[in-house]
Amino acid sequence: MIVALAGGVGGAKLAYGLDAASPNELLTVVVNTADDFLWHGLKVCPDLDTIMYTLGGWANTATGWGVADDNHTALSMLATYGQDPWFTIGDRDLATHVLRTDILRRGGTLTEATAVLARALGVRPHLLPMTDDVVETLIETPDGDLEFQEYFVRRRHEPLVTGVRFRGIESARPAREVVAALEAADLIVLCPSNPIVSIGPILATPGMRDALAAARAPVVAVSPIVGGRALRGPADHMLDSLGHESSALGVARLYAGVIKGMVIDERDVSLAPEIEALDIRVLATQSVMHDDADRRALARATVEFGYTLRRMQASPA
Amino acid sequence: MIVALAGGVGGAKLAYGLDAASPNELLTVVVNTADDFLWHGLKVCPDLDTIMYTLGGWANTATGWGVADDNHTALSMLATYGQDPWFTIGDRDLATHVLRTDILRRGGTLTEATAVLARALGVRPHLLPMTDDVVETLIETPDGDLEFQEYFVRRRHEPLVTGVRFRGIESARPAREVVAALEAADLIVLCPSNPIVSIGPILATPGMRDALAAARAPVVAVSPIVGGRALRGPADHMLDSLGHESSALGVARLYAGVIKGMVIDERDVSLAPEIEALDIRVLATQSVMHDDADRRALARATVEFGYTLRRMQASPA
Repeated sequence: MIVALAGGVGGAKLAYGLDAASPNELLTVVVNTADDFLWHGLKVCPDLDTIMYTLGGWANTATGWGVADDNHTALSMLATYGQDPWFTIGDRDLATHVLRTDILRRGGTLTEATAVLARALGVRPHLLPMTDDVVETLIETPDGDLEFQEYFVRRRHEPLVTGVRFRGIESARPAREVVAALEAADLIVLCPSNPIVSIGPILATPGMRDALAAARAPVVAVSPIVGGRALRGPADHMLDSLGHESSALGVARLYAGVIKGMVIDERDVSLAPEIEALDIRVLATQSVMHDDADRRALARATVEFGYTLRRMQASPA
Repeated sequence: MIVALAGGVGGAKLAYGLDAASPNELLTVVVNTADDFLWHGLKVCPDLDTIMYTLGGWANTATGWGVADDNHTALSMLATYGQDPWFTIGDRDLATHVLRTDILRRGGTLTEATAVLARALGVRPHLLPMTDDVVETLIETPDGDLEFQEYFVRRRHEPLVTGVRFRGIESARPAREVVAALEAADLIVLCPSNPIVSIGPILATPGMRDALAAARAPVVAVSPIVGGRALRGPADHMLDSLGHESSALGVARLYAGVIKGMVIDERDVSLAPEIEALDIRVLATQSVMHDDADRRALARATVEFGYTLRRMQASPA
C-alpha cells in the first residue's frame, strides 16, 4: 500500500500516475485541506476536488482544476446578483460543493463526505482529507493577512509572502483513517506540491510527524522545484520570500528529518550531494509531467526508488 | 398602495398584472412560504421565487416557474452523484438558493434575503414572505403525511388529500413589514392561488386575520376556481376531498369574514347570489389569464372593483 500526501494540481498529477502505474497497489491520497473555504456558505475544498476530479477522470485538463466541459450559468447568475465572481465555480463543480456541504450539515465528517463523492465519481484510490477539523491558511503580506484563496486566486499570488500561518492547526488532528493508512503503508510519498502551503499544513497537523516517524514505510518526496523554479504556482517566490532556498535543496531542508529519499529533476543533479548530506537519498530523473505517460513514468520511478529504500531499511548495509 | 396576498403561478400572474396595470401604485406582494423546503441543505422558496422571477421578467413562461433559458448542469451532476433529481432546479435558479441560504446563514431574515434578491433582479413591487419563521405544509394522505413538495412535485399532486396541516404555524408571526403594509394598504387582494395551501397558510399565520380585519382597506379575492375547476394545480381536488365545494362559492365560504368582495369568472355568474348572501360583493368578469393583456385586464378590473368597495365602505349607503 502506497500513501501519497498531496496538495493541488502537481499532487493530482503524481497521484494520477501512481494510480495508473500501479493498478494492483492500494493507493491512499491524503490531501491538504488548509485552503478549503466557504464560498457563499458552501464548503469548497480546492485540493481535494482537484485530486478527486483528476483521479476520477473528470478534471478539466486545460486548467488542471475544475470539471471538464463545465458551464458557468450559476456563476453568471451570481454576478447578476451583484456578487463578484472572482472564484470560478462551474455548475458541475457547484453540485459537488452543495452535496458536500449538505453531508457536513447533516453531521457527516469531511472524510465521509469525500468518500461519498469520490466513490460516485469512480475514484479508485482512497481519498482522505488530512483532517476533519477546520484549518485555514493565512498568508501574511505587507498589505496584511489574506485568506489563502484571496491571496492565491483573487490576488493571483502576486503579493509578497512574509509569513504563513495555519489557523486552527493547534487543535486539529489527523483523521483516524489517515493515521491508519500511514501505519499500514509500504511507501509514503510527498507529492510535488507546494512545500509551504500544500504539504506544509499536512506536516503541521499535530500528530502527523509522529505518525510519519512511526511508520514502517520509507517517506520519499518528489521535488516541486525544478531548476530553481516552481513548475506551477508561487512555491518558488514563497520559498524565497520566507528565507528558504528556491531549489530542490531548499525543499529538502524543509523535509529533513521526515523523508528518507527525494526525487529531483535530472537537471538538478548537482544538488544531490548537499541533499544527501541531509541524510536523504536522491534519485535524479526526468520529473516534469507534461502528459499521462510522464505521470506514470515519474510514479514508477518514485515507487521503485522508494521500494529500494525500503529494502535498504529492512536490511541495512 | 395595494397589497396582494399570493402563492405560486396564479398569484404571480395577477401580481404581474397589478404591477403592469398600475405603475404608479405602490404594490406589495405578501407570499406564502409554507411550501419552502431545504433542497440539499439550500433554502428553496418556490412561491417567492415564482413571483420574483415573474415580476422581474426572469420567469420561464412555458412552465410558469423557474428561470427562462436556464440550464440543468448542476442537477445532472447531482444525478451523477446518485441524487434523484425529482425537484428541478436550474443553474440560474440554484444561484438564487445559494445566495439566499448564505444570507440566512449569516443571520439575515428571509424578508431581508428576499429584498436583496428581488432588488438585484429588478423587481419593482415590494416582495415580502408572509413570515420570517419556518412553517411547513404537511399533506395528509391515505399513505401518511407528505411534505408539501413531496406531494406536489414528486407525487405530482396525485395522492388523495385527507387533511392539511401547517407545522410551526402556531409560533409563526407575520413579518413586521407585512403588518405595516396591511395597515397602510388602500386595497388588499387575495390572488387566485390555491385557497388551502397558498392563501391558507398566510391567513393561518397568527395575527394575520387580525391585521386584515384591522386594515382600513377592503379585502378582495380573485377566485382560482373557474367553472368548478382549478385553472392550474390541485385546488379543485383538494377542496373536494376536504369537504368543500370546488367552486367560486366554495372558495368564498373559506374566505367569508375576511373578504368584502370577490372577483369570479363570468361563466360562474350564477353563483353570485349565494356568494353575496355571505356578505361578499361579486364582480363577474373574464378571469382566465392567457397572456399579459389578460393579466393587466383582470388586475385593472380587480382594482376598480376594490376601489368601488372602498368608496362604498367610506360612505355607506
